[in-house]
Amino acid sequence: MSGEFSLIDKYFAHKQQNRKDVILAQGDDCAIVAPTAGSHIAISTDTLVAGTHFLADANPAQIAHKALASNISDLVAMGASPAWVSMGISLPEINTAWLERFSNAFFKLADYYGIQLIGGDTTKGPLTITLTVQGTLPEGKALTRHGAQSGDWVYVTGQLGDAKAGLDVILENNISADTSLNQELQRRHFEATPRVLAGIALRDIASAAIDISDGLVADLGHILKRSKVGARLNVAALPTSKELLQFVGSRALAQQYALTSGEEYELCFTVPEANRGQLEVALSNTPFTCIGQLTGTEYIELHNDDAPVDWQLDGFDHFKGNQ
Amino acid sequence: MSGEFSLIDKYFAHKQQNRKDVILAQGDDCAIVAPTAGSHIAISTDTLVAGTHFLADANPAQIAHKALASNISDLVAMGASPAWVSMGISLPEINTAWLERFSNAFFKLADYYGIQLIGGDTTKGPLTITLTVQGTLPEGKALTRHGAQSGDWVYVTGQLGDAKAGLDVILENNISADTSLNQELQRRHFEATPRVLAGIALRDIASAAIDISDGLVADLGHILKRSKVGARLNVAALPTSKELLQFVGSRALAQQYALTSGEEYELCFTVPEANRGQLEVALSNTPFTCIGQLTGTEYIELHNDDAPVDWQLDGFDHFKGNQ
Repeated sequence: MSGEFSLIDKYFAHKQQNRKDVILAQGDDCAIVAPTAGSHIAISTDTLVAGTHFLADANPAQIAHKALASNISDLVAMGASPAWVSMGISLPEINTAWLERFSNAFFKLADYYGIQLIGGDTTKGPLTITLTVQGTLPEGKALTRHGAQSGDWVYVTGQLGDAKAGLDVILENNISADTSLNQELQRRHFEATPRVLAGIALRDIASAAIDISDGLVADLGHILKRSKVGARLNVAALPTSKELLQFVGSRALAQQYALTSGEEYELCFTVPEANRGQLEVALSNTPFTCIGQLTGTEYIELHNDDAPVDWQLDGFDHFKGNQ
Repeated sequence: MSGEFSLIDKYFAHKQQNRKDVILAQGDDCAIVAPTAGSHIAISTDTLVAGTHFLADANPAQIAHKALASNISDLVAMGASPAWVSMGISLPEINTAWLERFSNAFFKLADYYGIQLIGGDTTKGPLTITLTVQGTLPEGKALTRHGAQSGDWVYVTGQLGDAKAGLDVILENNISADTSLNQELQRRHFEATPRVLAGIALRDIASAAIDISDGLVADLGHILKRSKVGARLNVAALPTSKELLQFVGSRALAQQYALTSGEEYELCFTVPEANRGQLEVALSNTPFTCIGQLTGTEYIELHNDDAPVDWQLDGFDHFKGNQ
């Protein structure tokens, strides 16, 4: 596989300084890492396929950002610190300009998060990227989906809905007459970044957490299912941007975007009443909003301050075709 | 992604008992594992693509076996004990019969090696499988490619060449008139299994090791390059099966198959003179053969007992198209 290896070598191998816990990176049968005593390892795998998760002619820098950011977002949702990443990538041909842009963007984000590419495999095939990321966290401190309890408060970081509006622009489903607004929303779609510090800060505070990758309703639904609780959410409290309101034209629509927008890389987390004070201190540098409270039911109930809300909302499902 | 999740759940989730070091397997944002204090972790990623690594209509059980075996083989070549595996899989459609056969074969082999599927991602797309396997090994005991020295002896486990003959049968490049011989070689191609116990036993004995996935010449070449040594190999010593000789019809051709046959999952390793006695004891249950010695040159020199050999041999290279 000399052709493949030289390809990997040129664009992917040894572009970063070795982390102290990396004994051996690329170039052997395996990478070798040395976990710190007492630490657990969080591991997540995501696959992105051209035509399913991004357009085949999408900007390679944006594909790289999305692939790595979505994986790191899973680490963040467990409260883990990003450490190592392995990449399996299939390419229809060796396109050096594409590889250059892809790898530059990949390493820019990897360096930002202190995560090291330790190995991988490059093969010929339809454009597909599978990353396995690993992060470390103190033993017993993982933020899971099953720890939430009725009465806990529901929070989200940042603002929701912009990623979906950006996708509208990309797919030309819905475009504003304001070109700079379109560009800004598209940029937010591609440049969303995981809340690593917030995830780490929440380890001792949150009862459950998840990253918003499929949309708030779908992702909060995973917490509810695993924790066997329900939620009552106030749509009027959903944090949305003025750009989103301008783009969709009505508050109700902006709220619906906030409920279903995926690939936000914001966190949804639950906090027991007793920890709410600590939360204000721990997340002093991250915007966050309380959007509701967990209930003893097993479903999500929406209200708009005092008025009931009856919207039909779907999650995101590749096989059902409603991407 | 409810459709995808239910798909993963049915065929892949919680089909195995939790290993003691797996704190959380599928069902959350990440899996969580707890490495033993003092152990290092070996990590390897391999991607298999339909049309590149296997025929699109290949038997799904054989695809699963190949995907997992080739990855475990990389762990073995480092002397690691298989522990955890993550899978990214793209499928063009939900074919339940295919998934059933694929997952059954996957778990059969995973259970055999005590490796647990801890997570993954299933997406819609061209058939592609990326596995990231992880294994544990005592700190500082990894078998690398860079430890070989001039004067060390070169060994291989098992017999070489059958996998290439089996591939000939599958691709209908070269078929024997003897149907049962064809079937047996095809079976050996698909059912080759990594030498896990040999890899572990070699930790304190071998100076370098690699698994034979691209062919002996290509893989030994990686050791030579990393260790800055050469090798003198006796082709008459290459271990080949009587079935291979029958299939190819001449000793010289059987030896050429042994030098270039990939996906064997046998080990090639080097041993200092001082450790040769230990080797006989440590590998008492694994067939192995000394095929030559390392030299101070940086190339591979072939001889046939006392006669020189001048064969043109190529490795396997997807992008060069000579698969």
